[in-house]
Amino acid sequence: MTDPDTTHALITTYWTSANARDWTTFASTLADDVVYELPQTRERIRGRDTYLRFNTEYPGDWQVATTRVVAAADQAATWIDVAVSGTTISATTFFKINDSGRITHITDFWPEPYEPPPGREHLVERW
Amino acid sequence: MTDPDTTHALITTYWTSANARDWTTFASTLADDVVYELPQTRERIRGRDTYLRFNTEYPGDWQVATTRVVAAADQAATWIDVAVSGTTISATTFFKINDSGRITHITDFWPEPYEPPPGREHLVERW
Repeated sequence: MTDPDTTHALITTYWTSANARDWTTFASTLADDVVYELPQTRERIRGRDTYLRFNTEYPGDWQVATTRVVAAADQAATWIDVAVSGTTISATTFFKINDSGRITHITDFWPEPYEPPPGREHLVERW
Repeated sequence: MTDPDTTHALITTYWTSANARDWTTFASTLADDVVYELPQTRERIRGRDTYLRFNTEYPGDWQVATTRVVAAADQAATWIDVAVSGTTISATTFFKINDSGRITHITDFWPEPYEPPPGREHLVERW
């Protein structure tokens, strides 16, 4: 079992190396049999090599800033803000970490803006 | 400063009491000046009383199951699956915790299903 501080460093490295397109360092954070899932599209990618290809082939000049990193011993979650094509979109990601300190499971969510439903204007402010 | 195990219990209580409509217990997890934000709609609610009203007035016969709880000393993140109107939707939530072990900030994301973009079929499987 790893510890929360080590997990925090691992997950920070995951995002900083992705942002730097330093794929060697990025790969070092991943278990060989890492599984990446996108529940919104019901897509799954198996294995480090395929997941690296998914990232290196991903289109666009995206830049990642980590807004929140929550780290426990064997899991973590992040909220990132991604600048791409003149706009910024948020993503939330859940990670599982193995005893060797590598990421075994990554689950990404990409929430889109939407209009609030009516009926709660008396409780909320907008920004 | 609280500790990760206490935060884990706090956040578990937050969701189990919400699911049970036990609003007294739910309120006990919140700081008086809790701030609730929905970045997708750019909505913000300030204060425990208003946030309680938002929850008690929320329509629908929703049932919450916690899929993932990630807890650190002063923050946490959850992935929940909410059954409502015969369907299940996921939400991801980020929390900040104060030194008294109460929740001061809650940020909810509600990602919707979407169709995957073309060009990565050679890397992914669908479910």
